[in-house]
Amino acid sequence: MDVMNTYRSILKWGDPAHEEAFDAHMLGFIGKTFGLSQGDLREKYLPGQDSVRLKKPSIPRTVIAALEKIAGKENVAVGDYERAYHSFGKFYLDLVYLRLGNVKNPPDAVVYPRSEDDVVKIMALCSAKKIPIVPFGGHSSVTRGVEPVKGGISLDLTRHMNRVVRVNEVNGTVTVQPGMYGPAFEEYLNRYKSGFTCGHFPQSFEYSTVGGWVVTRGAGQASTGYGKIEDMVLSLRVVAPRGVIETRDYPAAAIGPDIDQVIIGSEGAFGVVTEVTMKIRKRMPASTAYVSFMFRGFTDAVRAMREVMQAEFGKPHLFRISDPEETDVAFRLKGKDGSLADRMLSLLGYKPMQRCLMFVAVEGDRDYAKLVAKKIRAVAKANGGFATGSSPVKKWLEQRYSSAYLRDPFMDLGVMTDTLETAVSWENLVPLWSAVRTYIKSRPNTVCMVHISHVYENGANLYFTFLSPIRKGKDVEDFVSFHKGIIDTVHANKGSLSHHHGVGKLMAPWMRRELGTTGLGLVQAIKDYCDPKGIMNPGGTLGLK
Amino acid sequence: MDVMNTYRSILKWGDPAHEEAFDAHMLGFIGKTFGLSQGDLREKYLPGQDSVRLKKPSIPRTVIAALEKIAGKENVAVGDYERAYHSFGKFYLDLVYLRLGNVKNPPDAVVYPRSEDDVVKIMALCSAKKIPIVPFGGHSSVTRGVEPVKGGISLDLTRHMNRVVRVNEVNGTVTVQPGMYGPAFEEYLNRYKSGFTCGHFPQSFEYSTVGGWVVTRGAGQASTGYGKIEDMVLSLRVVAPRGVIETRDYPAAAIGPDIDQVIIGSEGAFGVVTEVTMKIRKRMPASTAYVSFMFRGFTDAVRAMREVMQAEFGKPHLFRISDPEETDVAFRLKGKDGSLADRMLSLLGYKPMQRCLMFVAVEGDRDYAKLVAKKIRAVAKANGGFATGSSPVKKWLEQRYSSAYLRDPFMDLGVMTDTLETAVSWENLVPLWSAVRTYIKSRPNTVCMVHISHVYENGANLYFTFLSPIRKGKDVEDFVSFHKGIIDTVHANKGSLSHHHGVGKLMAPWMRRELGTTGLGLVQAIKDYCDPKGIMNPGGTLGLK
Repeated sequence: MDVMNTYRSILKWGDPAHEEAFDAHMLGFIGKTFGLSQGDLREKYLPGQDSVRLKKPSIPRTVIAALEKIAGKENVAVGDYERAYHSFGKFYLDLVYLRLGNVKNPPDAVVYPRSEDDVVKIMALCSAKKIPIVPFGGHSSVTRGVEPVKGGISLDLTRHMNRVVRVNEVNGTVTVQPGMYGPAFEEYLNRYKSGFTCGHFPQSFEYSTVGGWVVTRGAGQASTGYGKIEDMVLSLRVVAPRGVIETRDYPAAAIGPDIDQVIIGSEGAFGVVTEVTMKIRKRMPASTAYVSFMFRGFTDAVRAMREVMQAEFGKPHLFRISDPEETDVAFRLKGKDGSLADRMLSLLGYKPMQRCLMFVAVEGDRDYAKLVAKKIRAVAKANGGFATGSSPVKKWLEQRYSSAYLRDPFMDLGVMTDTLETAVSWENLVPLWSAVRTYIKSRPNTVCMVHISHVYENGANLYFTFLSPIRKGKDVEDFVSFHKGIIDTVHANKGSLSHHHGVGKLMAPWMRRELGTTGLGLVQAIKDYCDPKGIMNPGGTLGLK
Repeated sequence: MDVMNTYRSILKWGDPAHEEAFDAHMLGFIGKTFGLSQGDLREKYLPGQDSVRLKKPSIPRTVIAALEKIAGKENVAVGDYERAYHSFGKFYLDLVYLRLGNVKNPPDAVVYPRSEDDVVKIMALCSAKKIPIVPFGGHSSVTRGVEPVKGGISLDLTRHMNRVVRVNEVNGTVTVQPGMYGPAFEEYLNRYKSGFTCGHFPQSFEYSTVGGWVVTRGAGQASTGYGKIEDMVLSLRVVAPRGVIETRDYPAAAIGPDIDQVIIGSEGAFGVVTEVTMKIRKRMPASTAYVSFMFRGFTDAVRAMREVMQAEFGKPHLFRISDPEETDVAFRLKGKDGSLADRMLSLLGYKPMQRCLMFVAVEGDRDYAKLVAKKIRAVAKANGGFATGSSPVKKWLEQRYSSAYLRDPFMDLGVMTDTLETAVSWENLVPLWSAVRTYIKSRPNTVCMVHISHVYENGANLYFTFLSPIRKGKDVEDFVSFHKGIIDTVHANKGSLSHHHGVGKLMAPWMRRELGTTGLGLVQAIKDYCDPKGIMNPGGTLGLK
């Protein structure tokens, strides 16, 4: 069997030919935690190893020919595998459907434009024929953001439109095409002359693109210092069915509404971003200061974090708190439960399932980083924080992209795992955390780990990871109803529908409640202007018609 | 004659009963600089001392009665003086027209709503009758932003909707009504418990309101540290003819386009902002570090400024460079030209009409402020900066709002004075500065002082102040053509139409060039949605229909 032609090769995070495996100790732990049977542990659940087979596309042959004329024959694909690949992102149910071999909404064709000019021509053709266009980047959407629910064309920007156009060292900016993947982009900047960084490292960094970061309003792990993507973008070029919108790289301006901030977060529903000019910074890795702390409880840790953000002595770049359950899991996974360190911490009042880890990294000038780290140490201490040195942070950074690789082996065992995130003001943070945890934990044999990873003067995000046994045979219905309950609980407790994953089609049903009727109508009006025939990522993206 | 009923009392900056006067030394200097005659110096040019007389308003009596029923009889005014007062802001030509007793576009009535509920009802009435509404705040617009060019109602928010709604210390936010003036707002925050600050101090601080800051995308003198108003606002309530839009105080989110950033800069053309939730910070004045430097030339000073902003050691809050002519005028006005200090500086290579002053203030935690100031000293030194101590900055801060008071006595002498500002990337900054200066200085007897006062990693603003003899009798035509030439030059040299004054009706003719046809169309589409009958600040605001 050719592993490369299977549903599994599409759903897998990372190299499709490589299979992660848990060791015996870990398997035992997992089996006990989730109440799995020997059968569960022995046999892969819905491995998705069949070869991909789809129904024929419904797009007329003449349109394919026209697309081939525009972008070149080699850049238009109608094969089953490529169409299936472009049908989903990495949302939990995407993976379930792939394991079930159920590709509900494949695109009719995949097109790889070579240039903005190709994009303009493809859009003109699709406008004339009312064919949907779904822009496609790194394949890591967790919001059904790239699912072509109305068919049409998946416009994959990663094959050709994936280059740095120019670096401007004086302005401190880079102009880059949307289809460039994170690692290639960052490596280019690191190697450019004295060395720069884009400062944007989302969890999906390895399999996400600059364009994806922009249109979803993404955030990276160093966002507390460098800001979210919307704080980094200085100007954009966007091809919409209405025409091309181009903004300028002013550092700020007072020329009406901020058009960049209309396009950022537009999730392909207004047009295709074809060029991004964003900030870069000098790379000074040797100057970074790392510190970590243990707190007696979540409230103490959150108070310390808030005090740091409001103290006006500078800001860390990486700033995280793991809640008690996430801290506990980290201890167990590292085999530290029951260790001397564990027992010492307990004796000092830092008890399992109460204590919380805080990670800090401060980048920039060496003296600045030292000062901020010193100040944070003082705030942490005043809130009962126990300094645990720099190595936990460094170790975490070394494996910071690894957790995503564990989803597939967990699903093989019959364990669902998904993440949700929200932004919330400080005063609502602990109540929201508590309410959502209570809801998630009401499901039997369920692990719920929470961290704060993007921090502001006025609040922070909360990032929920849950793992729970799959209700086999009722996979979809069971998940949908559980997931809906989480979002309802987040929303009732004053959290945003998303801090950085975006809305996609997944969160669409909540958007009217989130923005209000007039607010949602405003977003629809913007779409109707940009995309009068409704061909751009149609079928509910952002809750739009 | 009652000074309070004259055109002059409307145009005057500050207390209408107080007249600023130049001393004899200053008068001599002004006379020589601008080539004024003895007559010019003796007699006030167009003093505007007539009593205000307008044509009757054209609004039907029944509408006035309906407005009175909504807002109370005492909150609807149709008298000549109040209508004239609400006809203009403080743009140079506004002052000229007032001095000429020529009120071209008075509102038909002035209404002072007591609450958001009043605003909703007034808007419903005006929508039904197609009567324009122009929101009005502090009277300091310099872009014809509040001029009711289509008549209708001036909606003055300062009488009633001028209060702090709540302070949230945990979140670090304040919720405030739009009609609150800067000084009252800041004083309220300063006195609130341990003491807070809003951190927003525009040049117009004394005569501008929170709502005005928001809808024009204003910037304060400490914006380099605290950001522009768009960086401070967390959420808004807006009453538009379409309905009420309300956003939430999330610290960040990924829920589609940023609606706050659509309303910020909307200049009353979409609706009326009725509530603003924005960041506040702890006030720690004793910790502020002040430093100042003299540089040999503008290019040196700008390079140092850029290096500071890109060095990643924290940021100053106040950060300014005065260009050679502004530095020279400051020396002369303080009587320091020819002083020992002046001669010493010249000997060291800091020559008049080449040297440039830089002012720095760093706020926040004491150790942080000290570190940033120390780092800035090192960068300045490396670029040839000569440290001139803290007192020039402190003195400047003491009189930082004073320059606006000099416009009226200058105009009395027959000298026009106006300001223009732009945002520009670092690489285009010095060429733009040079080109605009060349244009302005081509006019005989003209002073052109430039400073940088809002600074970013990727560029800065340029703020031009010019003074030039009025071409008497041709006041308007002469100014219009000169002013047009400046904006054309700014635009041709890659500056934004505005960094913080806004667009108003003044910059409208350039907006298509600035945003492009599709971009401007997008803004129009937003307006058409929010304001389908086109009653909100109509007649060209933001370049819209």
